Amino acid sequence: KELQNRTTVTMIPGDGIGPEISAAVMKIFEAAKAPITWEERNVTAIKGPGGRWMIPPDAKESMDRSKIGLKGPLKTPIAAGHPSMNLLLRKTFDLYANVRPCVSIEGYKTPYTDVNLVTIRENTEGEYSGIEHMIVDGVVQSIKLITENASRRIAEYAFEYARNNKRTSVTAVHKANIMRMSDGLFLRKCREVAENYKDIKFTEMYLDTVCLNMVQDPTQFDVLVMPNLYGDILSDLCAGLIGGLGVTPSGNIGANGVAIFESVHGTAPDIAGMDLANPTALLLSAVMMLHHMGLHDHADKIQTACFDTIRDKKVLTKDLGGSAKCSEFTAEICRRVQDLD
Amino acid sequence: KELQNRTTVTMIPGDGIGPEISAAVMKIFEAAKAPITWEERNVTAIKGPGGRWMIPPDAKESMDRSKIGLKGPLKTPIAAGHPSMNLLLRKTFDLYANVRPCVSIEGYKTPYTDVNLVTIRENTEGEYSGIEHMIVDGVVQSIKLITENASRRIAEYAFEYARNNKRTSVTAVHKANIMRMSDGLFLRKCREVAENYKDIKFTEMYLDTVCLNMVQDPTQFDVLVMPNLYGDILSDLCAGLIGGLGVTPSGNIGANGVAIFESVHGTAPDIAGMDLANPTALLLSAVMMLHHMGLHDHADKIQTACFDTIRDKKVLTKDLGGSAKCSEFTAEICRRVQDLD
Ligand SMILES: CC(C)[C@H](C(=O)O)[C@@H](O)C(=O)O
Ligand SMILES: CC(C)[C@H](C(=O)O)[C@@H](O)C(=O)O
Repeated sequence: KELQNRTTVTMIPGDGIGPEISAAVMKIFEAAKAPITWEERNVTAIKGPGGRWMIPPDAKESMDRSKIGLKGPLKTPIAAGHPSMNLLLRKTFDLYANVRPCVSIEGYKTPYTDVNLVTIRENTEGEYSGIEHMIVDGVVQSIKLITENASRRIAEYAFEYARNNKRTSVTAVHKANIMRMSDGLFLRKCREVAENYKDIKFTEMYLDTVCLNMVQDPTQFDVLVMPNLYGDILSDLCAGLIGGLGVTPSGNIGANGVAIFESVHGTAPDIAGMDLANPTALLLSAVMMLHHMGLHDHADKIQTACFDTIRDKKVLTKDLGGSAKCSEFTAEICRRVQDLD
Repeated sequence: KELQNRTTVTMIPGDGIGPEISAAVMKIFEAAKAPITWEERNVTAIKGPGGRWMIPPDAKESMDRSKIGLKGPLKTPIAAGHPSMNLLLRKTFDLYANVRPCVSIEGYKTPYTDVNLVTIRENTEGEYSGIEHMIVDGVVQSIKLITENASRRIAEYAFEYARNNKRTSVTAVHKANIMRMSDGLFLRKCREVAENYKDIKFTEMYLDTVCLNMVQDPTQFDVLVMPNLYGDILSDLCAGLIGGLGVTPSGNIGANGVAIFESVHGTAPDIAGMDLANPTALLLSAVMMLHHMGLHDHADKIQTACFDTIRDKKVLTKDLGGSAKCSEFTAEICRRVQDLD
C-alpha cells in the first residue's frame, strides 16, 4: 500500500561531486520518509540519427514517464560541437521557466540580511536562440529572438507563482529603452498579463537599475521576471547575495507538471569522491521539487533540518565554514529530520 | 600669458539638477585655479535635414573644436522617435570606450570596502546596434553586432589603460559559451591583444560568474573589459558597490583625444533648483577629465578636497547622509582646495 503511493523521480546524479551529493539527498529523503522512488539515469549526450546530439533514450524515457527530475552538476562540454547538456535538457523537455528563490540563510553570514526574492527566467529563447552569422569577414551578428507566446507564458508563470507563494509584487526586468521591439514585446506581454492579477503589484525596471539597486538593497525586491540572458545574470548575482551557488536551489519548469530541479554549481572535480562536497544546493532543489509535487510536509521538514544544521554551526562542510565531511553533514540533517517526527 | 595656456572645455550642464551641479564644479575648478575655459552648450536634439535627429550645431561645433566635454544629466526622451541624447553623443563623436573607475570612498559606508576596479565598456555596437525586425506577427529579432575592429579597439584601450594606470590585470567578460560567434570574436580579439601586453595579467570570465563573484568579493577584480550591454549592467552594479551613481564618475573616450566626461545619475527633477543636489559624481568625472588632459596636479588637489570633505562627514548633502546644501558642500570643497595650496 505504501509503495503504491510512491512517486517516481528521475535522478540524474551528474559528474564530479554529483554522485556524492545525490547520495546525500537520497539518504535524507529516506530519513524523512519521503514517498519517492528514484530512477537513476546518466545523461551524457549521444549522437542520434542525422548526427544530432540528444540525451540518451533511457534517460529521456524515464523523464517522459516520471515527468520530474532531480539533477546534479554536469561537466561543461569541452569538445567543439558538443552541446551543453543543461541547454539540451531545457530544450528537450521545453522547460520554459527557470525559478530561483534567493533567501538569506540564518547563520550563514554574507554582506546582506533578509534577502527574500525569486528570479524567474525565460528559459527557451532570447539571446540563447543559437542563431549567429558572419556577415562579412570580421562582422558577426547574433540574433536575440523574442516571441509573444514565450513572453506571455513566462509572465503568466511569474504571476501565478507570486499568487501561489503569497508574494506581493512582480517586477519585469528589461532594456526596452535600447531593444525597443524585442524587450518592448516582452514588456508589453508582462503588462497585459499584469492586468489579470490585480492582487499582485506590477512594476517594470531597467536591468542596469535592478543590478544597482540589488547590491544596494535587495530587500526591496520580491518576484522578478525577465528574458533569458538577463535571468542568467541576475540569478547568479542574487545567489551571490545569499552565499553563492552552493546554497541556492533552482527549478526548471515546463508544461503539464514536467520539471527538473538542479543544483547550479559546478562539478568541483578537485574534491570529487573525497566526501567533502556540500549537498545543500541539491537538497534545497529537492525541497522545491517536493513542493512542486504537493509534498509540503516532507519539504518543510527537510528544509527545517537543513537550516537548523546550518544555523547551529556545529556540523558544517568546509565551504560553509566547518570541517565536517559530506557524510557527517548529511547524517546530522538525517538525525534532525527524524527528531522532527 | 596665463589665459593663453588655458584649455577650452565644452560644458553641457544638462537638465534638472544639471545646472546646479555644473555651477558647483566650475566654482571648485576656479578655487583650484584649474586652467580651463568653459564653453557652455545646450544639447537638446533637433531635427536635421532629412528628418534625422542631431545635436545642435553650436554644441557640435564647440565639441569639434575643444574635443573635450563635461556633461550633466540629460532627460531621457519621452516622445516616441526622439533619440537618447546620451546615445546620440556617443555616436556623433564615436566615443567608443566608456570608462568607470569604482573605488571605495573612505567614510562613505556600503557593504563593501576596498573596492578598486575599473569597468571598460565597448560603447558603439553589440546589443545597441538598433537593428530590430518583426519576422512574423509575434516574433521579433534584435541583432547584436560584434566586429573585429571595435573588439580590437576596446581591448587595446583596456590594456593601454591598465598599463598607464599602474593596474595589473585585465579580465574579459563574455558569454562565448552561448554566443559562440559574436562573443567568441570579442574574446579572440582580447586574447590577441593580450599577447602584446605581457606585463598585464589576462583572464576571461563568464558574465554570470563575474556578477556572482563581484557581489561576494569585488576586491578580486581590477580592469574589466566587455561588450556594450554587459558593460551597461556591470558598470551600474559596480557603482552600487561603492555608493551608487551619485558618487561614481564616468568618461566616454573616442579617438584623437576626443572625450566626454559625465555623471551618469538622473536629472532628479524633484529636487532641481532647490540647492540640494550632490555634485560629487560630476566633480569626480571632471577629475577624470583633468587627468585625461594631463593636468594631474589639479586633478589630485580637487579629488583630495572632495574625499576629505566626505571622510570628515561635517558638511555633506542629504543623499550622503548630511544636511548641507549643495552650495555649502561646494564651499567646503573650495575651502579645502585652497588650503591645499
Ligand atoms: C551552463 C550554461 C549554459 C548556463 C547558461 O548560461 O544558461 C548556466 O550559466 C546557467 O545559468 O544555467
Ligand atoms: C541612457 C541609456 C541609453 C544608457 C544605456 O543603456 O547605455 C545608460 O543606462 C548608460 O549606462 O549610460
